[in-house]
Amino acid sequence: MDSGGGLIDLNADLGEGVGDDAAMLEIVTSANVACGFHAGTPTDLHETCRAAVAAGVRIGAQVSYPDRSGFGRRFMEMTTSDLIADLVYQIGALDALARSVGGRVAYVKPHGALYNTVVRHEQQADAVVAAIRDVDAGLSVMGLPGSEVLARARRAGLATVTEAFADRAYTPQGTLVPRAETGAVLSDTAEIARRVVELVTTGRIAAIDGTSIGVEAQSVCLHGDTPGAVHHAQAVRAALTDAGFAIGAPG
Amino acid sequence: MDSGGGLIDLNADLGEGVGDDAAMLEIVTSANVACGFHAGTPTDLHETCRAAVAAGVRIGAQVSYPDRSGFGRRFMEMTTSDLIADLVYQIGALDALARSVGGRVAYVKPHGALYNTVVRHEQQADAVVAAIRDVDAGLSVMGLPGSEVLARARRAGLATVTEAFADRAYTPQGTLVPRAETGAVLSDTAEIARRVVELVTTGRIAAIDGTSIGVEAQSVCLHGDTPGAVHHAQAVRAALTDAGFAIGAPG
Amino acid sequence: MDSGGGLIDLNADLGEGVGDDAAMLEIVTSANVACGFHAGTPTDLHETCRAAVAAGVRIGAQVSYPDRSGFGRRFMEMTTSDLIADLVYQIGALDALARSVGGRVAYVKPHGALYNTVVRHEQQADAVVAAIRDVDAGLSVMGLPGSEVLARARRAGLATVTEAFADRAYTPQGTLVPRAETGAVLSDTAEIARRVVELVTTGRIAAIDGTSIGVEAQSVCLHGDTPGAVHHAQAVRAALTDAGFAIGAPG
Amino acid sequence: MDSGGGLIDLNADLGEGVGDDAAMLEIVTSANVACGFHAGTPTDLHETCRAAVAAGVRIGAQVSYPDRSGFGRRFMEMTTSDLIADLVYQIGALDALARSVGGRVAYVKPHGALYNTVVRHEQQADAVVAAIRDVDAGLSVMGLPGSEVLARARRAGLATVTEAFADRAYTPQGTLVPRAETGAVLSDTAEIARRVVELVTTGRIAAIDGTSIGVEAQSVCLHGDTPGAVHHAQAVRAALTDAGFAIGAPG
Repeated sequence: MDSGGGLIDLNADLGEGVGDDAAMLEIVTSANVACGFHAGTPTDLHETCRAAVAAGVRIGAQVSYPDRSGFGRRFMEMTTSDLIADLVYQIGALDALARSVGGRVAYVKPHGALYNTVVRHEQQADAVVAAIRDVDAGLSVMGLPGSEVLARARRAGLATVTEAFADRAYTPQGTLVPRAETGAVLSDTAEIARRVVELVTTGRIAAIDGTSIGVEAQSVCLHGDTPGAVHHAQAVRAALTDAGFAIGAPG
Repeated sequence: MDSGGGLIDLNADLGEGVGDDAAMLEIVTSANVACGFHAGTPTDLHETCRAAVAAGVRIGAQVSYPDRSGFGRRFMEMTTSDLIADLVYQIGALDALARSVGGRVAYVKPHGALYNTVVRHEQQADAVVAAIRDVDAGLSVMGLPGSEVLARARRAGLATVTEAFADRAYTPQGTLVPRAETGAVLSDTAEIARRVVELVTTGRIAAIDGTSIGVEAQSVCLHGDTPGAVHHAQAVRAALTDAGFAIGAPG
Repeated sequence: MDSGGGLIDLNADLGEGVGDDAAMLEIVTSANVACGFHAGTPTDLHETCRAAVAAGVRIGAQVSYPDRSGFGRRFMEMTTSDLIADLVYQIGALDALARSVGGRVAYVKPHGALYNTVVRHEQQADAVVAAIRDVDAGLSVMGLPGSEVLARARRAGLATVTEAFADRAYTPQGTLVPRAETGAVLSDTAEIARRVVELVTTGRIAAIDGTSIGVEAQSVCLHGDTPGAVHHAQAVRAALTDAGFAIGAPG
Repeated sequence: MDSGGGLIDLNADLGEGVGDDAAMLEIVTSANVACGFHAGTPTDLHETCRAAVAAGVRIGAQVSYPDRSGFGRRFMEMTTSDLIADLVYQIGALDALARSVGGRVAYVKPHGALYNTVVRHEQQADAVVAAIRDVDAGLSVMGLPGSEVLARARRAGLATVTEAFADRAYTPQGTLVPRAETGAVLSDTAEIARRVVELVTTGRIAAIDGTSIGVEAQSVCLHGDTPGAVHHAQAVRAALTDAGFAIGAPG
């Protein structure tokens, strides 16, 4: 507690054409940038990369199912070869945009339904790991602690980044309470900040039913597109700093 | 042989889901691979890159306007920043696919309406050159001899590859006779092969009105999607070899 | 003739940019026209409708998941409101194209993964029925005999058309053997024609394991995109005519 | 003039996923609803139609070039048959969505670059008119007074609706000052309201250089996506009502 517990990363989704990207770039240390499959035109992504580089924020490829009209939020059945090709395409496209403005893709974070699917879906988790390794074995993978995708990434020799969600309630199993359910999204700024500090300090948090569960987190995901998002994000960063944590990207 | 000599490249459009890609890969030395904006899914492009690598054929990014329903054949007005972002995105995506199977993008060839536009359109020609240089100044640009895009590419320090079209008629100005006009596309195999040899040997060819025009060509474009395409391509390669040319990618 | 009798419809998928549409329009009585979500540009669909009207062939809307890169062959999770909106959009678009050339959409046939999903998936089957009824309660629904979608369509007061597949093997449960399995697709012309006549005459067919199963069929689906497709289709039509069936669209 | 000058329509672009659609539906009498080619998912369009029907607001199809990544703001070369097919497809899709919630498409308004193009481009103006007539000769066309598209629509027997822009400066030729130029977009609420009343009362307005020009307008276009948009729109409606105009859709 005195030394704080070292380094904590703050990440947020950017380049989706919603939310206040400029404000969030002053708070976070990792930017999950859309790759055009769920949101964002190449021009949007280019500008987001440029802004992230200018802000000294690490760039991650937020890869998605090819589902523009559903914003990548719907499960899709995918063959391994289709999913690998889609992900290599997205990572390569974003990396070229990032490099052309002096940055580079440093990590990969699956978006939306793909994120949730690879918590348990072994075939798709394997495809995500294979795609990342095929592009660059130096890329790390950001995901839910305890997920299949992170376990398989580690086995494949990839670096991983576990993350917690600042404004989301957890089930007793350590997954997120689905957005459609009551209490899934927290809105009280003080409570959000307090929970984040507790979680990264103790590695434990109260699930929605009150159970204390373990949640390992090297990064905290801040949402930029909800009412009060920027305010919540600022409060979380301030609370972590007050608690003695250094804010910065891993590695 | 003495009057022949030198190296000539043979290129064809692949990965568009039309034509006999496997047969063409045994004939050409450069494969213009679609990047998903006018044709091709990431899976198609991945397979095409894999096949090109297996055949020892050089891979080029065939970049396009974002016009899937028009197969990239319609002129679009584009801001410089939109066109640059679209092209960087496409080149990066294809390069990642190519590298993941042991290859890489070695050159860029604009497709369809973009190809024709940058023969004269200075703003778009500049954007194409800027995009390529932003990705990798080691990439070369393939295009029409005498075009704005090649002139600007050279001034920017990029390597260029001039190309001639095996089965197309030329205007007295050295541009292609539009497909819709009578006589635009040649179909006689012997004539096609004879014209290619004459063109690369003498640097001159008869335009559609009989005028002799100069056409510089380091590469010859073979079409893979017309009736008899593979047969024509084989005949051109054989005629060039007979005339003493070595068939191979430049550089 | 006495044991034959009755009317049998022949349907095929058209407007997907593959296969010999012109030849198939001389054989079939119902054309399943793509709606742009899995294949086909508006221009393709317009031309297919025009050709169908000229050939006196009934037009159906072959509606799909919004999955262009997967050709509609991958299951997608969809909310009821998303699926309804997507289907109403597609049916309306195709109907306007059809009407502008003197035809109209007369029936709806789900494509690919959606077709297979609504055999058992109650929520999506309900959405398909709701969408069709919302557009026009006079539209009929084509699908697999015994499927949820047809049962629910009938309950909702919609006319239905059951179909059998000329060149596909059946499981003992009356569903199609998946394409990836050995023996799934039949290629012997005489066997295909014989099976179709047996099926529509007796209402029974041999499943892949030899079991005799009941398959009710008012329409027979002919594929237009496989090698020998047109030849198979002609043979099926000739065999049905020889067996005393009248070939024509229902209703 | 004494009674105010009769009826004036107020229109706005809706269903694009930007701006406060709910607030605008309480002000306007005609809703230009996107058709999915420049913006909007089928679900978005369905909801916008439902809200327009609930608010008693007339629905128009805001048809666009197929240019999602450019928001329909870039000129595209289109063959007549491609443009007709694209427009019939869009109008039909939106009409089916509108009808399924108790409304219907009553008019067509080209969006963005297509709107500006058909002011002068004869081939594309003809295609727009042909497409609308092919779908339903009872549809009216909304556009710029003096434009080719309205002249050709009238000659083809279609009803037309001329419109003025509440917050835009005019050139001495009666076209809009391009957005990129200084003074193109007005932001003073009182001035906007005053100009609209002057324009619809006198049929004249001051161009950006001070010249008085004639601008005929049966409808006034209100923007819903600029800062202060709803406030401006309310002020325009109040000023017109105060000046004795009845606010309502034509026909």
